[in-house]
Amino acid sequence: MREPIVTLPTVDARIYPRGGLDVLSRDEVARLRDASSGGMHDLLRRCALAVLTSGSPSDDPRAARELYPDFDIQVLQQDRGVRIDLLNAPAMAFVDGEIIRGVAELLFAVVRDLAYTAIELGERSNYDLTTSSGITNAVFGLLRNARILHPADPNLVVCWGGHSIGRDEYVYTKQAGYELGLRGLDICTGCGPGAMKGPMKGATIAHAKQRKRSTRYIGITEPGIIAAESPNPIVNHLVIMPDIEKRLEAFVRIAHGIIVFPGGVGTAEEILYLLGILLREENRDLPFPLILTGPAISAPYFEQIDQFIRLTLGEAAASRYEIVIGDGAAVARKMAQGIKRVREYRIAQKDSFFFNWALEVPQEFQQPFVPTHEAMAALDLHHGRKPHELAADLRRAFSGIVAGNVKEDGMRRIEAHGPFDIHGDHDMMRALDALLRAFVEQRRMKIAGEYRPCYRVLA
Amino acid sequence: MREPIVTLPTVDARIYPRGGLDVLSRDEVARLRDASSGGMHDLLRRCALAVLTSGSPSDDPRAARELYPDFDIQVLQQDRGVRIDLLNAPAMAFVDGEIIRGVAELLFAVVRDLAYTAIELGERSNYDLTTSSGITNAVFGLLRNARILHPADPNLVVCWGGHSIGRDEYVYTKQAGYELGLRGLDICTGCGPGAMKGPMKGATIAHAKQRKRSTRYIGITEPGIIAAESPNPIVNHLVIMPDIEKRLEAFVRIAHGIIVFPGGVGTAEEILYLLGILLREENRDLPFPLILTGPAISAPYFEQIDQFIRLTLGEAAASRYEIVIGDGAAVARKMAQGIKRVREYRIAQKDSFFFNWALEVPQEFQQPFVPTHEAMAALDLHHGRKPHELAADLRRAFSGIVAGNVKEDGMRRIEAHGPFDIHGDHDMMRALDALLRAFVEQRRMKIAGEYRPCYRVLA
Amino acid sequence: MREPIVTLPTVDARIYPRGGLDVLSRDEVARLRDASSGGMHDLLRRCALAVLTSGSPSDDPRAARELYPDFDIQVLQQDRGVRIDLLNAPAMAFVDGEIIRGVAELLFAVVRDLAYTAIELGERSNYDLTTSSGITNAVFGLLRNARILHPADPNLVVCWGGHSIGRDEYVYTKQAGYELGLRGLDICTGCGPGAMKGPMKGATIAHAKQRKRSTRYIGITEPGIIAAESPNPIVNHLVIMPDIEKRLEAFVRIAHGIIVFPGGVGTAEEILYLLGILLREENRDLPFPLILTGPAISAPYFEQIDQFIRLTLGEAAASRYEIVIGDGAAVARKMAQGIKRVREYRIAQKDSFFFNWALEVPQEFQQPFVPTHEAMAALDLHHGRKPHELAADLRRAFSGIVAGNVKEDGMRRIEAHGPFDIHGDHDMMRALDALLRAFVEQRRMKIAGEYRPCYRVLA
Amino acid sequence: MREPIVTLPTVDARIYPRGGLDVLSRDEVARLRDASSGGMHDLLRRCALAVLTSGSPSDDPRAARELYPDFDIQVLQQDRGVRIDLLNAPAMAFVDGEIIRGVAELLFAVVRDLAYTAIELGERSNYDLTTSSGITNAVFGLLRNARILHPADPNLVVCWGGHSIGRDEYVYTKQAGYELGLRGLDICTGCGPGAMKGPMKGATIAHAKQRKRSTRYIGITEPGIIAAESPNPIVNHLVIMPDIEKRLEAFVRIAHGIIVFPGGVGTAEEILYLLGILLREENRDLPFPLILTGPAISAPYFEQIDQFIRLTLGEAAASRYEIVIGDGAAVARKMAQGIKRVREYRIAQKDSFFFNWALEVPQEFQQPFVPTHEAMAALDLHHGRKPHELAADLRRAFSGIVAGNVKEDGMRRIEAHGPFDIHGDHDMMRALDALLRAFVEQRRMKIAGEYRPCYRVLA
Repeated sequence: MREPIVTLPTVDARIYPRGGLDVLSRDEVARLRDASSGGMHDLLRRCALAVLTSGSPSDDPRAARELYPDFDIQVLQQDRGVRIDLLNAPAMAFVDGEIIRGVAELLFAVVRDLAYTAIELGERSNYDLTTSSGITNAVFGLLRNARILHPADPNLVVCWGGHSIGRDEYVYTKQAGYELGLRGLDICTGCGPGAMKGPMKGATIAHAKQRKRSTRYIGITEPGIIAAESPNPIVNHLVIMPDIEKRLEAFVRIAHGIIVFPGGVGTAEEILYLLGILLREENRDLPFPLILTGPAISAPYFEQIDQFIRLTLGEAAASRYEIVIGDGAAVARKMAQGIKRVREYRIAQKDSFFFNWALEVPQEFQQPFVPTHEAMAALDLHHGRKPHELAADLRRAFSGIVAGNVKEDGMRRIEAHGPFDIHGDHDMMRALDALLRAFVEQRRMKIAGEYRPCYRVLA
Repeated sequence: MREPIVTLPTVDARIYPRGGLDVLSRDEVARLRDASSGGMHDLLRRCALAVLTSGSPSDDPRAARELYPDFDIQVLQQDRGVRIDLLNAPAMAFVDGEIIRGVAELLFAVVRDLAYTAIELGERSNYDLTTSSGITNAVFGLLRNARILHPADPNLVVCWGGHSIGRDEYVYTKQAGYELGLRGLDICTGCGPGAMKGPMKGATIAHAKQRKRSTRYIGITEPGIIAAESPNPIVNHLVIMPDIEKRLEAFVRIAHGIIVFPGGVGTAEEILYLLGILLREENRDLPFPLILTGPAISAPYFEQIDQFIRLTLGEAAASRYEIVIGDGAAVARKMAQGIKRVREYRIAQKDSFFFNWALEVPQEFQQPFVPTHEAMAALDLHHGRKPHELAADLRRAFSGIVAGNVKEDGMRRIEAHGPFDIHGDHDMMRALDALLRAFVEQRRMKIAGEYRPCYRVLA
Repeated sequence: MREPIVTLPTVDARIYPRGGLDVLSRDEVARLRDASSGGMHDLLRRCALAVLTSGSPSDDPRAARELYPDFDIQVLQQDRGVRIDLLNAPAMAFVDGEIIRGVAELLFAVVRDLAYTAIELGERSNYDLTTSSGITNAVFGLLRNARILHPADPNLVVCWGGHSIGRDEYVYTKQAGYELGLRGLDICTGCGPGAMKGPMKGATIAHAKQRKRSTRYIGITEPGIIAAESPNPIVNHLVIMPDIEKRLEAFVRIAHGIIVFPGGVGTAEEILYLLGILLREENRDLPFPLILTGPAISAPYFEQIDQFIRLTLGEAAASRYEIVIGDGAAVARKMAQGIKRVREYRIAQKDSFFFNWALEVPQEFQQPFVPTHEAMAALDLHHGRKPHELAADLRRAFSGIVAGNVKEDGMRRIEAHGPFDIHGDHDMMRALDALLRAFVEQRRMKIAGEYRPCYRVLA
Repeated sequence: MREPIVTLPTVDARIYPRGGLDVLSRDEVARLRDASSGGMHDLLRRCALAVLTSGSPSDDPRAARELYPDFDIQVLQQDRGVRIDLLNAPAMAFVDGEIIRGVAELLFAVVRDLAYTAIELGERSNYDLTTSSGITNAVFGLLRNARILHPADPNLVVCWGGHSIGRDEYVYTKQAGYELGLRGLDICTGCGPGAMKGPMKGATIAHAKQRKRSTRYIGITEPGIIAAESPNPIVNHLVIMPDIEKRLEAFVRIAHGIIVFPGGVGTAEEILYLLGILLREENRDLPFPLILTGPAISAPYFEQIDQFIRLTLGEAAASRYEIVIGDGAAVARKMAQGIKRVREYRIAQKDSFFFNWALEVPQEFQQPFVPTHEAMAALDLHHGRKPHELAADLRRAFSGIVAGNVKEDGMRRIEAHGPFDIHGDHDMMRALDALLRAFVEQRRMKIAGEYRPCYRVLA
C-alpha cells in the first residue's frame, strides 16, 4: 500500500439512530453490537467511511482509507437502544460539530443492512438460500427492512450507466433526469458518481419545480462496490445488498422501467443480466420498459452494444429495448407511457406495485459468481447455447472484469496472477474484444489514471 | 346453546388491508392464510365478530354469535397481498355498503395479531418461552409488530376498572379521562365498556379541545376476553395478546402510570398482579405512579380493597398506591407529575421511553394459569409466604373467578363441575369472601342478568 | 339586576394570539386595540365570557356575567403584535393555569370578528351596505377573514334546530350527526346547545371512527345570541356575524344542504328565511337539499310546521323540503345525494364550491330588523302578498319573538312596554297562535324556568 | 427594434390559480380582470413572459419578447374565480402540455402582486404614501399579501451580488449558499442569475442533505428588473414590489442578516442604501449582520469598495460590515451567530421576527428616484454632508447607472440624450470613476456584449 501523504481533519462523535434502529429489543441491540464487532467490523468500517466521504471524487477504494487511516466505528448497547461511536471520522460529514442529517441516515442504513444481512442471512437464517424463491424472499426481506417497499403508484425508474463518463454524457444524464422528474418519476441508481448521480441531480431540480414533496432517490449498492462508488449526496434511501447478484435482482424487482446510459463493463453486465432474464419464456409477455440512451456523441457506443447483443443473443433480445439518441424529453415520455402499461398489467394480474413478483429470475442469475481465474476461464461463450444461458455467462464475464478493475478482491487477484483468460467462439470473442477495447479508448474503465487491462480474450 | 330469537341485517364484503399487512411477501401471505384457515379460524371468527359489533351493549360472549350465526371470515391470497372476505357480517359495521374505516383497522389488527402469534410464537418460534426474558421479548415483539411502540415522550396512562360499573362511576371515569386528556395524556385500557370506555371518551373531548392531533386510545385484549368485551369504538390501536399473563405484562411494560377505577374480580386481579411485581426487591426504587380512584360513592369499595391488601400483602404493598376520591382533576395532576418523574428516571437510567425494560417481572407472573378445578384448589393462600408469591396466587384466584364468570372455557367448566373451591388461612378467606360478596352486591360481576357465584371460599 | 349569590373561581392570564391575528402591522394592532377598548369593549367582554364559559348549561345571557362579575378583557399592543389580558376569567377555561387551546382559539375568533366588523364595516367601510351585493360582499369578507372559506369538495351540512329540545330529540340529533359524519360530511350550526350541539357530537364520534383527519365544526353566531347560546366545546371554527340577517345569509351561502331539527321560534324564523329566498323566481332551479327531521315523537311538530307553511306560503314552498321521521341514516343518505347534485350544478355553472354566489338573496332578507313594538305591529301578515314578501314579514315576526325571549335588548323592551302585538289575517293569526302555543307547551321557548309570552296575536 | 431572427415553440393554455387567488369575491375578480386588462396589461405581459422563460441565459429585457412576439396573457372572470389564459406561451414552461407547477405558482405571484399594487396602491389606496410610515405599511401589506411573512424563528439571509459574475465567483456563491443551507438558513435574493442564483442552488443541496422539509427561496424583484433578471428556477416565493425603493425596503425589513457577494453597480447601490440607513442615529444599536464576501480572486474588488466607502461615508460606515475572503463556512458560521443576536434583540424589544419594524428607514431612501439626465446631474456628491444624506445621493447615482445599463426606460433615455453627467468633489469623483471603470474591466456591467458607459463622471 502507498504511504499516506496527507491526512484530513477529523471529528469524534456519538450518534443515536432513528427510524428503524430506534425500536429494538435488548436482544436485538446485543446481536447488532455483536454482529458489528465481529467479522463484520472491517466491512462496516469501510462502508461507513464511504458514506462519510460521500461526494468525494476518487473511485479508488483504498483512497478514503488512506486519507482517514485512524477512522473507526463502534456500535454500542444502551438500555435505550443503539449508540454509534465514530472515531476520527471525516470532518466533511459534519457541520459545526454536528453530523449532517442525511449522512447520519445513510450511516444508519449501513448499520441496518449489514446487521440484517449478518443476522437474517447468516447461519441461523430463516431463508432457504438454496432455492430461487428463497433468494427472492431474502431480497424482498432486505428491501422491506430498508423501507424501500411501500404501496404507491408505479413511478420508479432505475437508471444504469457508468461512473466514468464524458462531460457531454454526464450533462445528458442530468437533462434526462430533469425530464423524468418533470413527469413525477422517482430515480433509483447504483448510487455512485457519473450516470448514477446525473439523473438524480436533474430530477431534484425538476421535482423542486413541480413542487413534488415526497421524492425518492434510491441508491442500491453492495459491499464490494460502495467504497469505490461512494453514495452521491442526493441519495435519500440507501440499501446495501449482500452481493452483486442480489443487488441486480433488487434493481429489476423494484424497477417499473429501466434506462441505460453510456457506461463501461458494469453497465454491459447489467444489460446482459436483464436481457438474459427477459429472454426467458416465462417473462415474454411481461411489460418492462427498457431504453438505451445517450447524447449524439454516444450514438456509436450504443450501436456497438446493439451489434454485440444481436450477434450473441439474437434479434429477440434486441426487441426488448429501444435506443433513443439525444432526446431526454422523448426518453421520459416513452418511459412514462411504458410505466402506465406496467401499472395496468399489475392491476390486471393483481400483482403488487412495489415488487415485481411475476418476473421469473432463474437461479443461474441469482447465484453469486466469484471471479477466480478458473471460473473466468471456464465460462462457456459459444453459439448454440440457449440465449438466456449464454447471457448468464456473458454477464459473468463482464462481472469478472468489473471486479478486476475496481473491486479489492479482484484487483488483488489480478496483481497476484495476471489478467483473466476468457475463451469462446471466434466471432464472439472478436466482438467482445472490440467492445472492451472501445471501453478502454473511451476511458470508461476507470475515473483516474492509465488503464491496464485485467483480461485477455482468447478465441 | 339457546336458539337464536332474531338475526340482524348483514353484509358481504371484500377488504384489502393497509398499514402493516400491505407489504408482505408471497410466503408470508401464504402463511397468514394457512394460519387463519387452520386451527386459528374459529378464534379469528370470534374476534372479528367482536370487532364488527364494536359498540354493542352485551357482555355475553355468545350473544353476538347468536345474532350473526352465519358470519364467516376468510383470509385469501393474491399476488398483490392479502384479501379479507367477510360473509354475513353485521351491517352495523358498514355505511352504504362500505366498511367503516376504523372498524376495518381493528379488523386488520385482529388478523395481524392472531397471525403473528400463530407464526412467531408457534412451533418454530424464535422466542424461548421457557425463560422470563424470552417471554418479555415475545411481548415486546407483539407490541412492536402492532406498532404500539414508538419513541415519544412518556404520556401513556393505563386505566383499569370494571366493565360493569354504576352510572356515577362511569361518569366519573369520563370526567377523569377528560382531565387526563386536558393534560395531553393518552389512554390505554382493556378496551371494553364501562371503566375501559369512559376514560377514552373523556379524553377524546379533551384532546379535541386542546387540538391534540395525534392521539392514542390503545386497547389491549386477549382472545378469551375480546368477545366478552368488544373494543369500544374509540380505540384506535388494538392489540390482541395471546393470553392473560402477556396482556398484563403488556399493560405494565408500556404504562407510564396506572389508574384503577372501581371494578370487579378482573380489576382485583390486575391490582394484585401489579403489586406482586412492585413488591419485588428489584423494583423497589422504580417510580411507578399508581392511583386508585372513584367518585364519592365508591369510597367504601376502595376502603375494602385497601384493607384486603394490607391484610394479605402488608403495608409495603399499600405504600405503592394512593387513593383519591371524587377529584378527577387531582388524579390527573398527580399522574402528570408522576409521569414526569418516570421520564427523568428513564433518562437517568438510559432506559427506553416506550417499554419498561427495567421492571422485573418474575416468571410466576408470566406463566399462563389455566383455572381448572384442581389448579384453583391447589392455590396456597396462607400468611407467611413471601408477599410477591402470595400476590401471585391471589392473582390466580381472581383470574380463575373471572374465567368462571365471563370466559367460555371457564363457564363451561363451571357448568360441568360446579363452582371452584378456594382454600386458605381463615382470616384471609373471610376477607376474600367478604370482598367477593361485595362485588356481587354491587353488581360488579356481570353486566346483565342474575349472578350465580362460580366459586366457594373454604377457610 | 339580581344580586350575585355566588362567584366562581377565576384566573388572570396573558395570551398571545396565533393564526390570523399574528401577522398584523403596527397600525392594525393599534386599530384593533382602539376598536376593542372603545364602544366595542362591552360587547367584547360579553362575547369573550360566553366563549370562556363554553359548556355551561344556562341560556340566560346574564347568568355568566353574574357568576363572573369582575371579568374583564383587554387587547394590548406590543411591537410583536397583539396581547390579550384576561382578568378574573372563569377557571373552567384553564388547566393548571394554562388556557385550553381550543378555548383560546375561540377567543381569538371573537376578537378577530368584532374587530373586523368594527373596522371594515364601520364608518370608513369599503363595503356599500346599502346594496344587496354590497351586503353579500361584506358577508363574504367576514367569512373569508374567519378562514371559513376554502376550496374543497362540497360537504358542509348546516343543522338548524332549538337549543331547548327534549331528551329524545337531542339523542336523535346526535344519531343523525353520527350518520352524517360516517358519510364524511362536516357540520355547521348556530353553535349553542341542544340541536346545535347534538349533530356535532355525533359527527365527532363518526369522524373518529372513519379516521377523518380534517374536520370542521363551524359555529356561526351573532353578538345578541352568543351570550345566550355559548359555543359548545366541539366547535373548532367560530365566526361572529354582526347581526342576525348576516348570520342567516352566512348559513345559506356556505351550506351545501340544510337539515332542520325540532326547535322553537328561532328555528321557525330560519325556515321562513330560507323558504322565502328559495321561492324567488331566480332561485327556482337551484338545487338546495333541505330536510326537516326528528324522532317519532316530533312527528306532530313537523306536521304543524308543514301545515303552517302550506297555509301561509303555499304548496310551492312545501315542495322545497322533505320531512323524514325517525331515520337518521336515511336523512344522511339523502343529504349526501343532494350534495352530490349541488356539486354537479356548481361545476356546470362554474360557481365556487365554498360560497353560493348564485343564490339570489333579496334585500328585504338582508336588512336588519329591529323588533320595536312599532315594527312588530307594522308587519303585514295578510294573504295576497307575494309569497317571498310574506315570508319576509313572517320571518321578522318570529325574529322579534326570539328577541323578546332571549336577547337582552328584546327582553328589556318587553319588560318596559309589555308584549308585542302582531296583526294579520284571521286564519293566519290563528295558525300562528296555535304554533306558538305548541312551542310553549313543548317547552321549546326557554331552557329553564316558566315561560311568559312576549307577544299577543291579534287577528 | 431588431427583427426577430427566430421564434420558439409555443403553447396555449388555461390555468386556474390556487393559493391566494382562489378565494376571491366576484368584485375582486372583476377588479383583478380590469386591472390586468387596462394600463397594467403590458406590464403583466412582460412580467409573465419573464417567469415563463425562467432559466434563460440572456439579460436583455427585449430578447424574450422578440423570441415570443405573439405571447399574450388574459385574466378572465368566472363565477368560480379567476382564469388565466396564455396565448403563444413559451413551450419551455410546459411538460407534455401541462404547465410546470412551480412556474404556475410564480405566474400567480405576478398576477397577484401587480393586481395588489394596482388596486391597493392605486388612486383609492388606503395607504398614505406621502409619509414614511405609510410607505412602510404598504411594503408590509404587499409582503403579507404575498405570504412572505409568517411567524417563525429568524433564519432568513438576504444575498446581494451581481447577475454577471465570473465562474470562480459563481462557484463561491454556491459554496457559501451550501454552508448557509447546512446551518438551516433560508435564502432571499433579487431572484436573477449569478450571485442571485448560486446561493439558492447551494442551499438547495444542503437543505436536501439536512432533510429540511420547509425551505424558502424568496425572490424579490420589481417590474423594471424582472424582465432583465428572470427569476431563477429555484425561487419558490416570488414577490414583485412596485419600485426599486420598496424592493430595497422589503429586503432590509425581512432580512435577519445580509451577505454581499461581488457585483456591479446594482450591488453598490444596495450596499450604499443599507449603510445609509444603518448610519442613522436611531439604528445605531440595532444588530444587523452584514458580511461582504467572495473568493480569493475577489479580494481586490472588496478592497476597492471598502476604500470607496471609507472615503465617502467614513469609518463609522465601515464598522457596520465585515469582509471575509474565500471562506464560505466562516461566512455561514458568522451569519448564524449574528442571527442569534438578532433573535435575542427582537425578543428583548418585543419586536416581530418576520418584519424589522424597529429599523428606521428615512423618507429620502423610500421615495422613488427617476433617473432623468436632470436628476442625475443634480445629485449633491460633496464632502461635508451628513453621511446618510450623502449615502442617499450616492445610492441614487448608482441606481441611475443601473437603469442606463439594463432597464428599458433608462436605456431609451441614454439612446436619446447620451450618457448621464455626474458631478461632485474631485476625490470622490475620481474614486467613483475608478470603481466604475473596474466594474467595466471586470465585466460586471452586463452579461453579454461590449459595454458602452452610460455615464460621465465630472469632478
